[in-house]
Amino acid sequence: MRAFMDRDFLLHTATARTLYHDYAADCPIMDYHNHLNPREIYQRRRYENLTQLWLEADHYKWRVMRVCGVPEYYVTGNAPEYEKFEKFASVLPRLIGSPVYHWAHLELQRYFGISTPLTAATAREIWDKTSAMLRGEGFDAVSLLHKANVKILCTTDDPADTLEWHLKLKEDKEVPFRTLPSFRPDRFLHIDQSAWSAAVAQLGARYGAITDWDSLCAALTKSLDFFCEVGCRVTDHGFIRFRYGTGDPAVVVEKAMKGEALSESEIATYQGALLRFLAGEYHRRDLTMQLHLGPIRNNSPRLVSAFGADAGGDSVGLPTDPFQLSAFLGDLDGTDTLPKTILYNLNPADSAMLSTMAVNFAADGAKVQYGAAWWLLDHVRGISEQIDQLMETGLLSGSVGMLTDSRAFTSFARHEYFRRILCNKLGTLVEEGQYPCDIPTLGEMVRDICHRNAVNYFRF
Amino acid sequence: MRAFMDRDFLLHTATARTLYHDYAADCPIMDYHNHLNPREIYQRRRYENLTQLWLEADHYKWRVMRVCGVPEYYVTGNAPEYEKFEKFASVLPRLIGSPVYHWAHLELQRYFGISTPLTAATAREIWDKTSAMLRGEGFDAVSLLHKANVKILCTTDDPADTLEWHLKLKEDKEVPFRTLPSFRPDRFLHIDQSAWSAAVAQLGARYGAITDWDSLCAALTKSLDFFCEVGCRVTDHGFIRFRYGTGDPAVVVEKAMKGEALSESEIATYQGALLRFLAGEYHRRDLTMQLHLGPIRNNSPRLVSAFGADAGGDSVGLPTDPFQLSAFLGDLDGTDTLPKTILYNLNPADSAMLSTMAVNFAADGAKVQYGAAWWLLDHVRGISEQIDQLMETGLLSGSVGMLTDSRAFTSFARHEYFRRILCNKLGTLVEEGQYPCDIPTLGEMVRDICHRNAVNYFRF
Amino acid sequence: MRAFMDRDFLLHTATARTLYHDYAADCPIMDYHNHLNPREIYQRRRYENLTQLWLEADHYKWRVMRVCGVPEYYVTGNAPEYEKFEKFASVLPRLIGSPVYHWAHLELQRYFGISTPLTAATAREIWDKTSAMLRGEGFDAVSLLHKANVKILCTTDDPADTLEWHLKLKEDKEVPFRTLPSFRPDRFLHIDQSAWSAAVAQLGARYGAITDWDSLCAALTKSLDFFCEVGCRVTDHGFIRFRYGTGDPAVVVEKAMKGEALSESEIATYQGALLRFLAGEYHRRDLTMQLHLGPIRNNSPRLVSAFGADAGGDSVGLPTDPFQLSAFLGDLDGTDTLPKTILYNLNPADSAMLSTMAVNFAADGAKVQYGAAWWLLDHVRGISEQIDQLMETGLLSGSVGMLTDSRAFTSFARHEYFRRILCNKLGTLVEEGQYPCDIPTLGEMVRDICHRNAVNYFRF
Repeated sequence: MRAFMDRDFLLHTATARTLYHDYAADCPIMDYHNHLNPREIYQRRRYENLTQLWLEADHYKWRVMRVCGVPEYYVTGNAPEYEKFEKFASVLPRLIGSPVYHWAHLELQRYFGISTPLTAATAREIWDKTSAMLRGEGFDAVSLLHKANVKILCTTDDPADTLEWHLKLKEDKEVPFRTLPSFRPDRFLHIDQSAWSAAVAQLGARYGAITDWDSLCAALTKSLDFFCEVGCRVTDHGFIRFRYGTGDPAVVVEKAMKGEALSESEIATYQGALLRFLAGEYHRRDLTMQLHLGPIRNNSPRLVSAFGADAGGDSVGLPTDPFQLSAFLGDLDGTDTLPKTILYNLNPADSAMLSTMAVNFAADGAKVQYGAAWWLLDHVRGISEQIDQLMETGLLSGSVGMLTDSRAFTSFARHEYFRRILCNKLGTLVEEGQYPCDIPTLGEMVRDICHRNAVNYFRF
Repeated sequence: MRAFMDRDFLLHTATARTLYHDYAADCPIMDYHNHLNPREIYQRRRYENLTQLWLEADHYKWRVMRVCGVPEYYVTGNAPEYEKFEKFASVLPRLIGSPVYHWAHLELQRYFGISTPLTAATAREIWDKTSAMLRGEGFDAVSLLHKANVKILCTTDDPADTLEWHLKLKEDKEVPFRTLPSFRPDRFLHIDQSAWSAAVAQLGARYGAITDWDSLCAALTKSLDFFCEVGCRVTDHGFIRFRYGTGDPAVVVEKAMKGEALSESEIATYQGALLRFLAGEYHRRDLTMQLHLGPIRNNSPRLVSAFGADAGGDSVGLPTDPFQLSAFLGDLDGTDTLPKTILYNLNPADSAMLSTMAVNFAADGAKVQYGAAWWLLDHVRGISEQIDQLMETGLLSGSVGMLTDSRAFTSFARHEYFRRILCNKLGTLVEEGQYPCDIPTLGEMVRDICHRNAVNYFRF
Repeated sequence: MRAFMDRDFLLHTATARTLYHDYAADCPIMDYHNHLNPREIYQRRRYENLTQLWLEADHYKWRVMRVCGVPEYYVTGNAPEYEKFEKFASVLPRLIGSPVYHWAHLELQRYFGISTPLTAATAREIWDKTSAMLRGEGFDAVSLLHKANVKILCTTDDPADTLEWHLKLKEDKEVPFRTLPSFRPDRFLHIDQSAWSAAVAQLGARYGAITDWDSLCAALTKSLDFFCEVGCRVTDHGFIRFRYGTGDPAVVVEKAMKGEALSESEIATYQGALLRFLAGEYHRRDLTMQLHLGPIRNNSPRLVSAFGADAGGDSVGLPTDPFQLSAFLGDLDGTDTLPKTILYNLNPADSAMLSTMAVNFAADGAKVQYGAAWWLLDHVRGISEQIDQLMETGLLSGSVGMLTDSRAFTSFARHEYFRRILCNKLGTLVEEGQYPCDIPTLGEMVRDICHRNAVNYFRF
């Protein structure tokens, strides 16, 4: 029996252990997609305790607390900080097999040197010890990221954003990593959602009045130019339901501006046109286009009315229509405007489709990639599935590897989680005789996936 | 090499064996969903032989016999009883890896103490031995259930049912377990199927004439009250295609009563309204609502014309639309009328969607649950998948565990099957260092899943 | 650690090794579905080098070269043959876990006795050695197939084909195996595609003018009779999107002949009618109907314009609608015109649906089968999934086993790949105590699946 989450956690063979410890462990982290707040980085935010660090904004943890029956008062309510932590600690042992369970313990080990399992019984001791450490040196936002060996962070930003904190970070020579903005025009894509009008107004206020399709495109172009000046390399787009239409978007924008209701087909026309336009602009600037496909957001009206959006009431949604995705990528491919693209699915039933679809457009190498396991798939089986798909139908060795997609400053243990699973899988193939025991070749492959492919792909 | 289906069947680690033998094995069975006939229980039905016990009504076994080329004469036809059994015994060795193979041998071991593999060569000996035992004491319907440590049975009953046998069983103080009715209004939901009119007529005859939507609701309410008097705790609903609409059902009922054809949208309107109405009534009475999603029934016209419905010509159908399911649960959640709910899928592509959808509505604990592997998914991989999903995206330790969904009195070996797979999975996590080797905590978790969670959830 | 792809490759237990080496390894190959060119067989085509043998027509290898960034000049372009091979050799080590990696090495071992891993460093040596061998005896097309123990080949042929080379092969008494045509009316099914008109004209030129639905059916009947004379046992049908409608196809054919656009519903009407008609003809002749469901073809306009169709730009498509498939099979079943049928999926989300659907129509044994892992699913996990599905919900022991679906003369190593995975899976079940260690029974089961079931099913 292996000891609890020890040095060789998830590494079941000698080859896996060699690959992880000798090649993967010390690779720098290029976290090309997360939701960190650049202000907190610039201001070296400090945390007084684990509740501030862990429970303030992490809807993964809120979900598991709720499903364990913890009242909302202790989840997102006004309970005292220690009581919130104690509730979390009390339910943690019930979360056997959950990534939240593994992440919490990896973070305790890596950031605080604590290897005691967190339970109701150890909650006070761990609270006291971590609170004391958090008050000391090396636990502000920048130090936490530096400690995790982070070299690049790509945050997630709205086109109307002033990028105030990114600009300040650019000038701050004492931060030992780079924080780059990512262009995420979701509010502009979802013309059927109420946020569209406000988004258009805000963008217009910054980049020139938006009165129609052309002025919308012009403003987005200016924003994109500005993002690139500040260092943007990556863009991102979230879809509850991926729609792709052809046709003239101008009339749809006109109707939307008048507040008229849009049909499914009009929404698809608009989204198709905007995606084609943006993708062309990305291609011109060598930006990567990320597509996050398939959640259903904010399912619970009670949570939304009590808390608002992003409360953790989200789930796996409909599989993506491969015909529409193929039409979109094909139109770009046929007009030589296809940018580097990463496809992420939330519905596991899409894995094989996305992985094989990516390869159709691989003419210049792994230009279109099937992306890492994401959100509700970010667990041992989900990560394994992505790695297996890449090996079977894509190109694992060309993958840009893992990202955190997180709002929390200690979530970088997710890279370690991924790397262990990766090395374990490669180790098993070698030990089973499915691949030669050529450690240098395998080690370089591991370093490519954990670090160097991202550097090259995103031009970091 | 492990011996054939011995004491440690499916238990691959020492931890798994400890958890199973010391904690799971003797947990009482709370079988909250099955299709047993309460009359056969009350009458202490006896079986003369394994054909009566196994082959009379079990369409799982019929399917495997047919796919092995056994003529229908020996499956559901008039062949002599021993010949039917001999045919089944002859094909059984061909069913390597099938749950039917495992169940048959578990049942021979547990009920008859026979550990010889059943084959054409051993058929006669096993027939003779089991027939002799069945003639003796301890093999009537009540004894078989008692021997399996059954404490609760929830059968499946139509709202128009008189519950005659449940009423008798309630008075029968010598039955060492409780048999409760479950409210299953399928005939009333499926307004597009021919059985709807007869169902409405039967319910009306019992609870007052049904002439429109309001009187339908009134009759269903009376039926529900009666079910609750007799001990009902659980309701159930089967969907070939889950439709959920809004709008006024009164006009749809009016059309249906006139025998007019209904559009898809009208069916959805009616089903949506009836589901909202029923769910509200369940919530008021603290009844659990089960939704069984995604089979296609009676695919073979030849089987249907030769035998009728439920002949075994059923398969995995379309994945469930998450938008419609979310709309239904969200409407109940937003009006504080969401009852305890269990979601079961037949299409494995729905697992992640249902498991994550359930957690969206978990505000009071695991109130909405992702249910056990069902029917064509009730096998080692299917059970593993449900347990994995719960660990990754739900709450395994809060699960109400297994049920039989069976018509056969010896199917309770399926609980053992589930428990072994559960303990094996937990054992592996511990032995791999993914969870501390804290046997008391793990053991209590196992007992919760196998028994106590169901007692609390269903208020048994 | 097991040596690299040695004698016991993929065989992890003693039972697996016994089953493979003593039962599976020497089974003859009945390759009931492939895309070999019968002319090349008749002419005993010779290959000067591995580029001709491996890279000339194999879009699996083209895909992996492209995704590794190899320029099209070396993939399908005019690069010198050795340079193409060297590029392939250089990227091969990057393909860890890919079936292409395994197949290439199995083929080097079995056909050339080379067990050195192919890399940039070994490319020249392996090129020289294999080129020398290819120039010698035993490496023409017929010898390669004979060496692989092939007894039956079913190629894939258009109904308008003259079967010239099949006729010649029938008379060639020195070929130690039989090459049979398969009837694949895809061009005739896809009335919405541009190839339909040409197909109809070609068939009409051969079998009598086609002016309407009736004359189309008459011509197809004549073609089918001719195919049967030449030895046809199997038919095949590919569907991007399986549509099944009822109604009168005559008007649809009339519109198509005038070049008018067809609606989705008209296409479904036509395809439904043609499938019903053809299936009835197959049933009458005891031909097997294969349905290949779910790819999206030729996604990349750049590849299509540079190369044409079948360039390797294909991916997993939409899951198949179970209602439409059930309606089709049910209509045949209800009219006693259901032929033997094999259902293949490309989208893995369809596995459980197809496997269970097949069993619904199993009244005469495994008449409708869930077919082998195909194309983008033809890898260790995909093959495992099909075997698992058959064990859980179908009948593994009745399966007709593997096929190559290949255009390459050395692809028969795929049968070995399948057989190893099969024996390993059975071995694991036995070693875990899930099935008695009855080697003779298991061995016969293995031989059935690898060879004899196909002989009986297809009447070879």
